[in-house]
Amino acid sequence: MGKLFKIGVDAMGGDNAPAEIVKGACMATQRYPDVEVTLFGREEDIKNHLLDSHDRIKIIHCNDVIPMDASDPAMAIRRQKESSLVVASKAVKNGEVEALVSAGATGPLIAAGTLLVKRLRSVDRPALAPLLPTVKKDANTILCDAGATSEAKASFIYQNAKLADIYAKSVLGIKRPTIGLLNIGTEDGKGGAEQVEAFTLLKNDESLNFVGNIEAKSMISGEFDIIATDGYAGNIALKAVEGTAKDIFALLKEEIMSTAKGKVGGLLLKSTFAGIKEIINPKTVGGAILLGIGAPVIKSPGSSDAETFMYSVGHAKKVIENDVIKKIDVALEKKIEALEMKILLL
Amino acid sequence: MGKLFKIGVDAMGGDNAPAEIVKGACMATQRYPDVEVTLFGREEDIKNHLLDSHDRIKIIHCNDVIPMDASDPAMAIRRQKESSLVVASKAVKNGEVEALVSAGATGPLIAAGTLLVKRLRSVDRPALAPLLPTVKKDANTILCDAGATSEAKASFIYQNAKLADIYAKSVLGIKRPTIGLLNIGTEDGKGGAEQVEAFTLLKNDESLNFVGNIEAKSMISGEFDIIATDGYAGNIALKAVEGTAKDIFALLKEEIMSTAKGKVGGLLLKSTFAGIKEIINPKTVGGAILLGIGAPVIKSPGSSDAETFMYSVGHAKKVIENDVIKKIDVALEKKIEALEMKILLL
Repeated sequence: MGKLFKIGVDAMGGDNAPAEIVKGACMATQRYPDVEVTLFGREEDIKNHLLDSHDRIKIIHCNDVIPMDASDPAMAIRRQKESSLVVASKAVKNGEVEALVSAGATGPLIAAGTLLVKRLRSVDRPALAPLLPTVKKDANTILCDAGATSEAKASFIYQNAKLADIYAKSVLGIKRPTIGLLNIGTEDGKGGAEQVEAFTLLKNDESLNFVGNIEAKSMISGEFDIIATDGYAGNIALKAVEGTAKDIFALLKEEIMSTAKGKVGGLLLKSTFAGIKEIINPKTVGGAILLGIGAPVIKSPGSSDAETFMYSVGHAKKVIENDVIKKIDVALEKKIEALEMKILLL
Repeated sequence: MGKLFKIGVDAMGGDNAPAEIVKGACMATQRYPDVEVTLFGREEDIKNHLLDSHDRIKIIHCNDVIPMDASDPAMAIRRQKESSLVVASKAVKNGEVEALVSAGATGPLIAAGTLLVKRLRSVDRPALAPLLPTVKKDANTILCDAGATSEAKASFIYQNAKLADIYAKSVLGIKRPTIGLLNIGTEDGKGGAEQVEAFTLLKNDESLNFVGNIEAKSMISGEFDIIATDGYAGNIALKAVEGTAKDIFALLKEEIMSTAKGKVGGLLLKSTFAGIKEIINPKTVGGAILLGIGAPVIKSPGSSDAETFMYSVGHAKKVIENDVIKKIDVALEKKIEALEMKILLL
């Protein structure tokens, strides 16, 4: 038997936890024969929802759960030492599992990743890098950072581009990912001081396929492989996209249901709408990776059902398989060494 | 005869200029009997498109036009002294007309507003305040700033809220407009240092109906009267909304046209789609006002047709009629005086 990918699952995180999370984790062991999942959470609850029982499904009992609406995530992580998220994060840190997948709230997961799994020495700040669905069916766009770090510094934006570049090359297999800098216009020199400096850093790095400034109207157009930005702007752009798509579909539904003609038309277009919703909000993307951390940490959507969560586990496997964390560390460590060398030579 | 509202129109700005702009301006004189328009641009071109000829339509010939894609707007304003935009802006400054309406590019219009019409002494930075259409049919949301100023300072964000508040009260007739601070989460204390400081400034101003932090998913939900933000985040949020709506409708059209069943369904839903498009992108909103300038400056959409432009002229009339600029100056001047008084008393 070959290598097993040991993936830790926070069974208690998510709107549909533990039922759909446990089911999804079991489905992942069926779909990926080289995956072993360790479910962290209340043993009884977990056992109630197991689809299967074999030696690639393990359970580690945890007494406590961090709530989805924890107002101070860092404090919750420090205090709730017996929570499924904290115990799972420590298991990743200690190498008992190789990755962490959670559908719990983003704030606590980022705090756990940063405080417990820990940042790579070579990385200044962690960055959340969701794969955005786009209207160009098979094309996704990586947004980095989508909100892990709220400070908007040029060096962070540049690093977010580097992180996403390594991820796109190794996990998505894109040879020369195109990178756009999110800005308020496409011309050179746009934005505030940090954007202007980030532009220069990106342009001067010959290892990157930097295409220049891009606007937020390109968020789901599928024109670029990577949208590099700070976590504040990235979060706002992402939520604007999600809110707009949701509001338009809700309005469409309401309008369709308001007339008889509309109802018939809606029925005829049922599969069209379902297809579009799947393009806009696909289950198969597998959640968002938190980059810059010493192990793969995957944020599955809060609303994950079993199928969505299964793909998030698959995503974690792919990140381990392609040695993404090591590649990031080597690439960014080299940059640090080069900088240190430059300083020595000054 | 009562007071005439004298509105200056940049006849050469916009994707459909001068034809649709001239027609729209003429339509405005028909719709609003107390409006006089002065068309700035190439006299021959303008005359070719006049719908009407009476003494409330005036023409001022200008030799030059600032292109829609001017890469350095401030430079264009300084150099192209005979352009329709520059001549019209100077006419506003000199009081020959009382407002300026243009469907030309945003950058040059903001530059002309700031450099030629000039900022109010009481205002630190100008702010662009579009009325966002929302899915709650008759509710609009004012976004302020949508990109006039790219620096994100707490005092600017606070001032943007004040500007929008006065505008909402006087032009839209909303008694206690609800104000949300655009942020990366709804909890108090979210965001970077500037957002945290802006939150405190807004919370401590008892004249404002501040509801706290809001997320970009509420951009078109119609939940709030005013979304206060810096021009960088505001521009990104706005373009993310516009791009998403456009991409979803394009995809919907493509999917509908790809099957026979889809085509029939699409036909039945034709009026539904048209209705939703009108909600998402209404002609009647009348463009966006540039606040903080010494006279009403209205940015009509670049794609304005005659009807859209007519409503933008109507918007300018409403701003003059309600004495918005004076109200802003008085309200913010008072604040300056109060601050100066505080400093004296220290």
